Amino acid sequence: MIVAMQDQASDEAIQNVIERMVELGFNVHRTTGTTQTILAGVGTPASFDVNEFKVLTGVHDAYRISSPYKLAGRSFRPEGTTITFPNGVVVGGKEVAIMAGPCSVESREQILLSAQQVAAAGGKFLRGGAFKPRSSPYSFQGMGLEGLKLLREVSDATGLLVITEVMEISQIELMLPYIDCFQVGARNMQNFNLLRELGYVRKPILMKRGIAATIEEVLLSAEYILSGGNYDLMLCERGIRTFETYTRNTMDVSAVPVLKHLTHLPVFADPSHGVGKRNFVPPMALASVAAGADGLLMEMHPNPDKAMSDGAQSLYPQQLEDLIAQLRQLAPIVGRTIA
Amino acid sequence: MIVAMQDQASDEAIQNVIERMVELGFNVHRTTGTTQTILAGVGTPASFDVNEFKVLTGVHDAYRISSPYKLAGRSFRPEGTTITFPNGVVVGGKEVAIMAGPCSVESREQILLSAQQVAAAGGKFLRGGAFKPRSSPYSFQGMGLEGLKLLREVSDATGLLVITEVMEISQIELMLPYIDCFQVGARNMQNFNLLRELGYVRKPILMKRGIAATIEEVLLSAEYILSGGNYDLMLCERGIRTFETYTRNTMDVSAVPVLKHLTHLPVFADPSHGVGKRNFVPPMALASVAAGADGLLMEMHPNPDKAMSDGAQSLYPQQLEDLIAQLRQLAPIVGRTIA
Amino acid sequence: MIVAMQDQASDEAIQNVIERMVELGFNVHRTTGTTQTILAGVGTPASFDVNEFKVLTGVHDAYRISSPYKLAGRSFRPEGTTITFPNGVVVGGKEVAIMAGPCSVESREQILLSAQQVAAAGGKFLRGGAFKPRSSPYSFQGMGLEGLKLLREVSDATGLLVITEVMEISQIELMLPYIDCFQVGARNMQNFNLLRELGYVRKPILMKRGIAATIEEVLLSAEYILSGGNYDLMLCERGIRTFETYTRNTMDVSAVPVLKHLTHLPVFADPSHGVGKRNFVPPMALASVAAGADGLLMEMHPNPDKAMSDGAQSLYPQQLEDLIAQLRQLAPIVGRTIA
Amino acid sequence: MIVAMQDQASDEAIQNVIERMVELGFNVHRTTGTTQTILAGVGTPASFDVNEFKVLTGVHDAYRISSPYKLAGRSFRPEGTTITFPNGVVVGGKEVAIMAGPCSVESREQILLSAQQVAAAGGKFLRGGAFKPRSSPYSFQGMGLEGLKLLREVSDATGLLVITEVMEISQIELMLPYIDCFQVGARNMQNFNLLRELGYVRKPILMKRGIAATIEEVLLSAEYILSGGNYDLMLCERGIRTFETYTRNTMDVSAVPVLKHLTHLPVFADPSHGVGKRNFVPPMALASVAAGADGLLMEMHPNPDKAMSDGAQSLYPQQLEDLIAQLRQLAPIVGRTIA
Repeated sequence: MIVAMQDQASDEAIQNVIERMVELGFNVHRTTGTTQTILAGVGTPASFDVNEFKVLTGVHDAYRISSPYKLAGRSFRPEGTTITFPNGVVVGGKEVAIMAGPCSVESREQILLSAQQVAAAGGKFLRGGAFKPRSSPYSFQGMGLEGLKLLREVSDATGLLVITEVMEISQIELMLPYIDCFQVGARNMQNFNLLRELGYVRKPILMKRGIAATIEEVLLSAEYILSGGNYDLMLCERGIRTFETYTRNTMDVSAVPVLKHLTHLPVFADPSHGVGKRNFVPPMALASVAAGADGLLMEMHPNPDKAMSDGAQSLYPQQLEDLIAQLRQLAPIVGRTIA
Repeated sequence: MIVAMQDQASDEAIQNVIERMVELGFNVHRTTGTTQTILAGVGTPASFDVNEFKVLTGVHDAYRISSPYKLAGRSFRPEGTTITFPNGVVVGGKEVAIMAGPCSVESREQILLSAQQVAAAGGKFLRGGAFKPRSSPYSFQGMGLEGLKLLREVSDATGLLVITEVMEISQIELMLPYIDCFQVGARNMQNFNLLRELGYVRKPILMKRGIAATIEEVLLSAEYILSGGNYDLMLCERGIRTFETYTRNTMDVSAVPVLKHLTHLPVFADPSHGVGKRNFVPPMALASVAAGADGLLMEMHPNPDKAMSDGAQSLYPQQLEDLIAQLRQLAPIVGRTIA
Repeated sequence: MIVAMQDQASDEAIQNVIERMVELGFNVHRTTGTTQTILAGVGTPASFDVNEFKVLTGVHDAYRISSPYKLAGRSFRPEGTTITFPNGVVVGGKEVAIMAGPCSVESREQILLSAQQVAAAGGKFLRGGAFKPRSSPYSFQGMGLEGLKLLREVSDATGLLVITEVMEISQIELMLPYIDCFQVGARNMQNFNLLRELGYVRKPILMKRGIAATIEEVLLSAEYILSGGNYDLMLCERGIRTFETYTRNTMDVSAVPVLKHLTHLPVFADPSHGVGKRNFVPPMALASVAAGADGLLMEMHPNPDKAMSDGAQSLYPQQLEDLIAQLRQLAPIVGRTIA
Repeated sequence: MIVAMQDQASDEAIQNVIERMVELGFNVHRTTGTTQTILAGVGTPASFDVNEFKVLTGVHDAYRISSPYKLAGRSFRPEGTTITFPNGVVVGGKEVAIMAGPCSVESREQILLSAQQVAAAGGKFLRGGAFKPRSSPYSFQGMGLEGLKLLREVSDATGLLVITEVMEISQIELMLPYIDCFQVGARNMQNFNLLRELGYVRKPILMKRGIAATIEEVLLSAEYILSGGNYDLMLCERGIRTFETYTRNTMDVSAVPVLKHLTHLPVFADPSHGVGKRNFVPPMALASVAAGADGLLMEMHPNPDKAMSDGAQSLYPQQLEDLIAQLRQLAPIVGRTIA
């Protein structure tokens, strides 16, 4: 930590800051300029709040200089994390992984058809919500356990892996027998109790960026899961909230290369939630892979116009097939492949 | 709902939109202009997604015209909601309620001193976290059950009511015997499972606005709690995330009069999280009451410089006392009182 | 400036950073920790770009520790700036100044009536646009020179001072004979050529915060005007752009006490543009003065329902009168007066 | 326009709204539901303010249903606009155009070397600022006329076209002899006086999106230029301001396909300002072309570490060369070429 004192700060104020730094476990180096004193705190206390220093008497400003996350940092695993799934699919390697499927599981017929279409197009994971987080209590809330069973059944039939959203600690046990990967939704990215429990699970997790989460907060939330011992974690950019309303969110494509730079964890992109309108999903999927994404998470529905949720952003099956064909051509240009 | 068709949309496209509206339960009135057709859907289906219509062929745009919330709307209780606590304190009436206390319960001594200071200054509720949502897994996470017991003990001793944050469904039962009011934090404003459970509880709730939540989303989350039958709900503006970084958040003071206009629920303001630096808390507290707030939630610590969390935004005891004295003078100018 | 090197940065990288700092005119103090080296640059080069250091090899992060503005800083004039107008009105002192009037000058009758109503209510300045910045080229663009003459005429008749918006360098000369105060609109807060010219003028200026301007950028733009020698400058918070769409902008009331802390310049608030709907203007005007504003800029129209621009946010004359009466009671509570 | 009345709005209120709509030139169609009345205004008055209706008595909400821009809309030129430059370079066709060069012209040597490197890499336009908009009055403000002359000279020598930023009306005439394309910077996107003058010029313009401008505002600003008769206009996404601070701005890549959908004008992307750090420029450039951009505007400097402005985001010459080579492979996958 660095504390820059105000010009002409009193010796007493400087001494007080130094004492507080030492209390926290820093070794303090003092630089005295003609007008300003700078205090460099060397060492890394487990936890401290840089804001506390900003309001101490005589302080101009204070800066944290070490990352507040450790396990999530790139330097923890410079070579990058790869995750191997039971059927041999590897995420985080050369292959770009495609996860697709409807927003919600609606019926056996709908999810089976979805799975067949995803598999035919070249997807490796079937996504589908069994429990749905909906802004309105009057909206469809998902099929629950029945939905989980259907996901498992149709995925086994089509050779896909299952990813579905977990919203609550009590759902973890319930889901374990049926799924291959937990998804933490944007609204739960700072549900720390849930994250902590998921750290104790031994199943891969894909955690979405919160709608107003900074890159640093994404990595701090990742740290919750990693510090529980679960290293099979993927991150996912899915659009942030800005002033622009034409698109559902503003997809921060730059989060892909930035996260790849800062962390060793695989980074996905979800263009469906990123833009919210299906016609803009293919260009944004291409953009995400061009920018270095390790995988894509997309909504597709056999009949989007009749979908019970998120129909507007769900691709038609043919769109998914065409898109993956195009992605297959693009991937090698950025050193990747799509099987 | 209104659907505005594109200029020269085909009859087939128009017919398709009409059918979809009728399917959802709307009566459709059609206005045919020289270039553009407008479809007005009259009636109120329990739930529908206006975005779905925006991407149908031939549609220019679609607008929801009824509020997606009902129980939370001002017209449901035009006279406003008042909440009476066991000790006779009424929230939502003429009196402006003050809730204050430290971010976290840290020790018996600290919380007792806090309670005495809050009570002496004129506060009615003691706030204090027993379970803390912290961005970093390495930060202090709270005293847990022990903290709850201390909150109850010192509040009984000083005549205060207890408000504390609930982060997880499993904490509800645990907290019930010790507290007078649940607080739902900003990060949990869209934790719908938690909201639903709190709807079944018979104890007042103060729900904070999410860091990136629109006014409409605040009211939809309120609807989750109200629709469970718990009408003793207070809302709280606590700052939203914007591009400005000098303050911790950007406190949307206008949310106070806007919410008072749109809903019957009492509206609080939390200037401590709103600005994040203690010197700006008093002016923002005054501004909030001037703008019509029904109450204030503020952090105060007997010794903020040694606080285990949020010290930078915690008032000194004397600051709280001076502020409440000033608020007592201001309140009558906007037709309110502070005892 | 502080440069924090990465753990185990090479000596060559450290040396390279030191050389670049010295080139810019810094004296460099080096702190070598067990894992990390920190370089403190003491001294204040006229201009440098901290971002340049963030991307040098081996650098973890770099921090500017001196304010990039000097003349605008509070320490330049700790006692605060007061501006005395020709008719004796003083801004920046104990008195809270009220500026009100229509968005645009529309006719002699309309602006005369406006002036009479503003004066009767207790306002000191008449606002009114002669040249209008409109998002659409098809909207009313103002009466131009004719509008300026009308503003002068009716203000002289009613004892008010004239403030109007300048959008273009060529308008400065044109306006000088007719007005008492230039207004720089939010869209021009970073029109640096205009700011520089206004620095050479000897007439007071009220500069609005840009819709996406940080506090620091506001002060840097102020620096442009001050560095030209024009010290009669007022700043004005008028709402920033956020994700919330219910209000026209999100009024950052905290910018008032924050700016009062950081600069010696008087700080105004414009609740009309802040919220965009007239019913929310009075509570936000009260909030602004409660938070410490030195003055208010508000839209009022003799007949808002027929206004040629911004009718929705213009107060009715009676509303303005009632509001100022209420402000007169509130001001003394925060140590101010309204005549 | 649609006006949705409140439930049980009075006949008088409804009548008042109808009269106001008729006054503006709308034909009004009324739909009376059991609880709510909806008024559809058919016709397109040249200009009206939908907000005015939102605050009329008895109104629930009001919606504009026609685009406020006309000439900029895709339907005005469904086939898309192409711009042919004097040397035969065509923008808006199959070819993706590359514009590159330093932030500022610093010296004859620097700009000549830049031009040679841009031309060698495959760029078609040389960018370089002669007049610089700088946040601080103490930063380097550009070489002015001398810079313009150098740009022309070195471009002629290398076969490049010149694009440079115009900040002020008085610079237009000055620049005309030396440049091939005006650039309107983000800070001037709503400098309507400047836009209007540029509408009268007969030279191509590239207009950048304002830092807080919505897509609709971009198109309204385009309308200013088009309505003056200058149709040789290109738009450019360059990042918007959000809460994320790791990148300089948040590059809204989705603005590329969205603008391509809404307007016939060519759409560029500027990844340099979008991210602000050179290592993230290549992935974002690839992403932009993958998303459909008609061209790229990028900063490159012969020696970025010594650049007088924006060095942190300027590519090394070799990076530009490698990037364009990669773009040449990618372009055909989305149906484009790079010569």
